[in-house]
Amino acid sequence: MIREIKGGICAVGGVKAYGIKDGKKGLAVITAKGKAAGVYTKNKVIAAPLIVTRENLETNGGFLEAVIVNSGNANAFTGGPGLEDANVMAETLAEKLGIDKKFVGVASTGVIGRKLHIDIIKEQIDRVLPNLGSGVKENDETMKAIMTTDLVPKGIAVEVETSGGTFRVGGIAKGSGMIEPNMGTMLAFVYTGLMIEKDSFDEDFKVLIGRTFNMIVVDGDTSTNDICLITATGKSGVSSKADASVYPEFLEALETVLRELAKMIARDGEGATKLVECTVTSAADERDAVLAAKSIVRSPLVKSAIFGNDPNWGRIVAAAGYSGAEFDQKNISLTLSDGEKSITLVEKGKITNNDEAALAALKAIMAAKTIYIMTDLGAGSEKATAWGCDLTYDYVKINADYTT
Amino acid sequence: MIREIKGGICAVGGVKAYGIKDGKKGLAVITAKGKAAGVYTKNKVIAAPLIVTRENLETNGGFLEAVIVNSGNANAFTGGPGLEDANVMAETLAEKLGIDKKFVGVASTGVIGRKLHIDIIKEQIDRVLPNLGSGVKENDETMKAIMTTDLVPKGIAVEVETSGGTFRVGGIAKGSGMIEPNMGTMLAFVYTGLMIEKDSFDEDFKVLIGRTFNMIVVDGDTSTNDICLITATGKSGVSSKADASVYPEFLEALETVLRELAKMIARDGEGATKLVECTVTSAADERDAVLAAKSIVRSPLVKSAIFGNDPNWGRIVAAAGYSGAEFDQKNISLTLSDGEKSITLVEKGKITNNDEAALAALKAIMAAKTIYIMTDLGAGSEKATAWGCDLTYDYVKINADYTT
Repeated sequence: MIREIKGGICAVGGVKAYGIKDGKKGLAVITAKGKAAGVYTKNKVIAAPLIVTRENLETNGGFLEAVIVNSGNANAFTGGPGLEDANVMAETLAEKLGIDKKFVGVASTGVIGRKLHIDIIKEQIDRVLPNLGSGVKENDETMKAIMTTDLVPKGIAVEVETSGGTFRVGGIAKGSGMIEPNMGTMLAFVYTGLMIEKDSFDEDFKVLIGRTFNMIVVDGDTSTNDICLITATGKSGVSSKADASVYPEFLEALETVLRELAKMIARDGEGATKLVECTVTSAADERDAVLAAKSIVRSPLVKSAIFGNDPNWGRIVAAAGYSGAEFDQKNISLTLSDGEKSITLVEKGKITNNDEAALAALKAIMAAKTIYIMTDLGAGSEKATAWGCDLTYDYVKINADYTT
Repeated sequence: MIREIKGGICAVGGVKAYGIKDGKKGLAVITAKGKAAGVYTKNKVIAAPLIVTRENLETNGGFLEAVIVNSGNANAFTGGPGLEDANVMAETLAEKLGIDKKFVGVASTGVIGRKLHIDIIKEQIDRVLPNLGSGVKENDETMKAIMTTDLVPKGIAVEVETSGGTFRVGGIAKGSGMIEPNMGTMLAFVYTGLMIEKDSFDEDFKVLIGRTFNMIVVDGDTSTNDICLITATGKSGVSSKADASVYPEFLEALETVLRELAKMIARDGEGATKLVECTVTSAADERDAVLAAKSIVRSPLVKSAIFGNDPNWGRIVAAAGYSGAEFDQKNISLTLSDGEKSITLVEKGKITNNDEAALAALKAIMAAKTIYIMTDLGAGSEKATAWGCDLTYDYVKINADYTT
């Protein structure tokens, strides 16, 4: 049984965290000892902190003791000096904590192509460390410290009761713009008290990321700094080997945490006023389902229409059409819903509802805070769900004047 | 020698045209007899008029005598009735002109998923036909009749002097939104007085479309109705066989016409205030150059920054990074220009200019009406150029309320 609890990552045994923010410059530190795994952006321009973190995890046997995160500067495309700065971040924290720097994860978010103000970060570390703690407040300050244009802090924790024992999974994230994660999202940090003893975990983690963070699109820009790190502290005393049911239930809980964080990021996309959930069914294969679902939530025309409650549903069909997914327009079906009312506009290629009354009903559905788009391609049996948001004046406003 | 002349398609011998617009509903007819070729959207949801046109050209030996175009309704995703409507458009026109309907091309643009008002179109045909003509005015009215959210009519004609004789090439187009052509653009109609006698022409035409219309992005939405038709009337009396120089010079003139129409569409993208020309050089192969150039002009973050003159050049590097093109960030170079002044921000991976003065100079360059982005990937010797526009409040405004 999975139930939501308070406290974000600090709900997980063995996790201490804190963060501060001075204007646009934030710094957070999380300490938690355990087996760890990471997924990183596939952008060819990969940020310095990710290079350092990946190298650490590859050479230290897959363990982390602490994570340091700064916001306001991405430390991306900063060449040799950037790599040195990322290493200094890890070294400085390691020294103060009395640990080896190879067990430190580093992440950054903010403007690309600017030298880090490493002195400010060093000074911020000194102010953060005395406040490390495991309470709701400490989790809150950590979530806030890693935000950039995010309006809402993002975190969740769940408690999982299995026949093999009870453990927790918690995560925090930040998102907002430059969001079409090609593996993580801007930044996400996930913890569990479970002792993970499973060879396939790294692979399983990637699969879950593929179904959650990799299925959200805010603007289609894949960041240079996407990272998602998970650390298993084992402090619950429960091992994934305790019982055959534990590991599958853990994966289910982990997917819940990742998916809820992903949806929080989509809903809080830059300038967004609505969350869009698009489910594509009856695709020829899973890749087609993913292509079509992401194409629909990525389409600027669909996103603008959702912002304005414009019942221009033809754009949804068009976005599926150019997605690269195989289907015949004679077999496609389309239903929109606000979670309560729903309207089927197309059934097996035939327009079923398109008169004034139907378009008025569609407009009313589109006015909801969460819009569900269900597209059936009629081409097979695979499915996928993607999340996105509307495209608004505020997205343009935020991004027409970000650095200055 | 290629020089620009007035008159658009009507500058080409054998072409007569006219168009009218009643509110949002426009109708244009172009008559011109000759060898013809077409390229069509690759969207799986292909509009009914394109199905009819493609079928006609495939079965009639590649000739057209007339084209009929309506704006305001895309006749896309309209099933059997839509196909019937598109056929009725061709038949009605053919009957009135006393020609065979298989020599009529049909195109439509506007809202997707709405039944065509075929009676209005029939009535409009009767008002258009008596006005068909070859003057500048007739070309103007035709350009205007096919517009939807376009602010500017789009047309160009050139005269080509070769040692084998003189002939003309003219074209008109409409664009604006749902623009990432995957073969044509919304609609483009091109004519030449040259008698084309060359087996490779259909293939050559596709290559030129690939370098021009397929290199523009307004919003990344590939329309269901993209079509580009070319008809060679032969009225110049010059044949492509007249002289070895004629055909290459014709292709050059044709590419000029297609490219200028493509740039007009990009500059007049929905809500756009600026044209963006992005050239990627030193790519490992041509596909990589295309991927990177299109990724940069498609990026909502780059487009928003250009709208707001925000010197946030890191977003350009990031967009190249997630484009799928192969390169090492240590070898990339980046220069921005307004056509007169230019600033090199990155040279072989090293940031060369990033202080306050440099960013102010970059801001000034970004304030121009045409912005040139030159990205050198340092990975090979191939190149490509793509065109796009900025992302503005008006794009959102236009598309949040298009059908209603």
